[in-house]
Amino acid sequence: MFTQGEERNREVITQVKAAKEAAGKLSGATTGQKNQALLAMADAIWRNRQEILVANQQDVQDAQAAGQTASKVDRLQLNEKRLQDMMEGLRKLIELTDPIGELLETILRPDGLLIEKVRVPLGVIAMIYESRPNVTVDAAGLALKTGNAVVLRGGKEALRSNAALVKALKEGLEAVHLPTDAFQFINRTERESVDDLIQARGLVDLVIPRGGAGLIERVVKHSLVPVIETGVGNCHVYVDKQADLQKADAIVINAKTQRPSVCNAMETLLVHADIAEQWLPVILAQLMERGVEIRACERARAALAGNPQLREKAVPATDADWSTEFLDLIMNVKIVADVNEAIQHINTYGTLHSEAIVTEDPGSAQIFLQQVDAAAVYHNASTRFTDGFEFGFGAEIGISTQKLHARGPMGLKEMTSYKYLIKGNGQIRV
Amino acid sequence: MFTQGEERNREVITQVKAAKEAAGKLSGATTGQKNQALLAMADAIWRNRQEILVANQQDVQDAQAAGQTASKVDRLQLNEKRLQDMMEGLRKLIELTDPIGELLETILRPDGLLIEKVRVPLGVIAMIYESRPNVTVDAAGLALKTGNAVVLRGGKEALRSNAALVKALKEGLEAVHLPTDAFQFINRTERESVDDLIQARGLVDLVIPRGGAGLIERVVKHSLVPVIETGVGNCHVYVDKQADLQKADAIVINAKTQRPSVCNAMETLLVHADIAEQWLPVILAQLMERGVEIRACERARAALAGNPQLREKAVPATDADWSTEFLDLIMNVKIVADVNEAIQHINTYGTLHSEAIVTEDPGSAQIFLQQVDAAAVYHNASTRFTDGFEFGFGAEIGISTQKLHARGPMGLKEMTSYKYLIKGNGQIRV
Repeated sequence: MFTQGEERNREVITQVKAAKEAAGKLSGATTGQKNQALLAMADAIWRNRQEILVANQQDVQDAQAAGQTASKVDRLQLNEKRLQDMMEGLRKLIELTDPIGELLETILRPDGLLIEKVRVPLGVIAMIYESRPNVTVDAAGLALKTGNAVVLRGGKEALRSNAALVKALKEGLEAVHLPTDAFQFINRTERESVDDLIQARGLVDLVIPRGGAGLIERVVKHSLVPVIETGVGNCHVYVDKQADLQKADAIVINAKTQRPSVCNAMETLLVHADIAEQWLPVILAQLMERGVEIRACERARAALAGNPQLREKAVPATDADWSTEFLDLIMNVKIVADVNEAIQHINTYGTLHSEAIVTEDPGSAQIFLQQVDAAAVYHNASTRFTDGFEFGFGAEIGISTQKLHARGPMGLKEMTSYKYLIKGNGQIRV
Repeated sequence: MFTQGEERNREVITQVKAAKEAAGKLSGATTGQKNQALLAMADAIWRNRQEILVANQQDVQDAQAAGQTASKVDRLQLNEKRLQDMMEGLRKLIELTDPIGELLETILRPDGLLIEKVRVPLGVIAMIYESRPNVTVDAAGLALKTGNAVVLRGGKEALRSNAALVKALKEGLEAVHLPTDAFQFINRTERESVDDLIQARGLVDLVIPRGGAGLIERVVKHSLVPVIETGVGNCHVYVDKQADLQKADAIVINAKTQRPSVCNAMETLLVHADIAEQWLPVILAQLMERGVEIRACERARAALAGNPQLREKAVPATDADWSTEFLDLIMNVKIVADVNEAIQHINTYGTLHSEAIVTEDPGSAQIFLQQVDAAAVYHNASTRFTDGFEFGFGAEIGISTQKLHARGPMGLKEMTSYKYLIKGNGQIRV
């Protein structure tokens, strides 16, 4: 007899082992086989669309009944158009170069040993994510193209939608005789099933948490296998005294308001003291017009002295605000003495995601690009470009905010490892 | 008032913060400055040799009094020759190419955005290692050359030796006006100081544990920052039915006996059933002559039926033996039906380190190279070559047995990250 916890753990581990076994087979699949599978996966989604949409409808009703926010329900909701977008995503992967098997380096040693460094799949990737069914299809497609097996653990609100999608995706694998075990779906809602998965050392090669700071923190804390942290972006734009203020207007408004709910949106504006009195009222008025709430440092509020109406709306920022990823039409503003203070603020509060300087002074730009510690550092452009598609990668599995393995947008290559193949004729070490 | 634990944690965190601050400065150091520092570090070791050797003598006496094994005491012991070897190691780093600043990729986007992917230091690397003072100097040298700060936490038996060495190394930094805070030595023996270090999320960018399986497991379990596991090697040699047995003799003897205490030594010999009766008595006799103890599967013992003396010495292997990294003149032997069973055994019990096949059959070699999941897979060569120096990297910080970031020997490039510098003229996302 097993306890419920043991039973759950046994089931998850059985799935992970099946994924590992399938990963071994998948690592030898040809590009042609994998591309056929992607096509078959897209077809199978369309063939199963009714079943998927019915399952999704149930998820959506439950989410609404549970009082989920409209934006969460919207992320969960599927329709034929959204299914077609998912299918299009799978088909686009076909055009991308298969990274597996690439010869990265050849070393011929004096004793005749030939060392070849070749690109191989990682093996088993575990995805832990929120209630967004599109991530299920994205992750399966990217894993398949890179020869990896994937274990999917999505948010509980999307359980039925994900189950129906994974069933269809497996049909696609089956159609081209690739192991259906390569896609494992954890059809459970207990939080502990996440722990089972991220503690399967020796079976899972990488965990990618995709979601808010809380989810990521939980995974980092409990994981015994390597993790790549993604997507928490407390991003800054620094407007220098030598900025072209027309560029600054456009960049700041774009970085904050074009899509405030995403990780590469700006959360704090840093302004050089010399231009604060002149420019701050101008930009803040434009932002407020677009519905942005402002939290300002004392000096910024002082700079608004000539405009009491603006000043009143720019409430004092608290210490916690500087560390907050609002993901909403809220932002901080802070006056800094120079580029060095801007860099220091960013390296203290930033999350190593995306940071920008607006300036016409090449010296300040150079210092900023070199000293800011982030995946993507911009000169005279919006932080909103940090994205696998915008970088031309054709796809992305997430945006890494750590420095190990992959940094910034992670495309196909970032989902691979390498191994050394050493060919000899009897060499021994002396 | 602080408790002792809080006091310790505060002290370690203060050191880590100082390292992070220094890492920022070091990231901008020129190759010339770093090479001068390496030279000055070597000189400072020699200048301080008396102080270092006195400290080491105290460590050695305590270790002997505490009943440490001769091999542990030997690893701890320093003398002028060993100091010169360390200094030579530092000087050799000067000749190696500085990886920092390398332009890895340039992407020009249709809207004119220029994206440059450049190699940068990781930041702060924490080294957790056993009582081997040479690791202190190696790690400091490699970190410095790659623009990283390093926090050193060595085994407690080497505390005085390490403290004296780090003092000298800091003198080297000071001589060339680089921040001495780039080398932090945790001058404490409490195990909890390791936890303080590996849980400093946002301050430490990478932890590298170097030591036995127990040390590595502890670090993996408690760490909240990215870890690269190194050095646990349960390595196999598979001798195929189509092996050139002269090569097999040489490779097996070399892989097991040339230096049994290291991670790339063979722990289990796998032999194709068709050649077992003929070849097994030959190779086992040679191994036993060299003092190797044999643990054999039932079929291997049966294959020794014609030689009762050998058979008696080849004791039955237990289940635990197949997973054991003996690091000693002990090994397992197992008969397998074919290359597929060999691969399956290796992928079940191996530690993703180094694995070899001996065969003249290109088909079997190909299957083995493709399907064995390990950092280094050998065809007709000894596993003993897995090593940064043997691969021509000129240096190594350890041998990674995981698939993320770095696999196999880690040289200078493996101690770096990258960032994207994006240069625009006002681009915003539409």
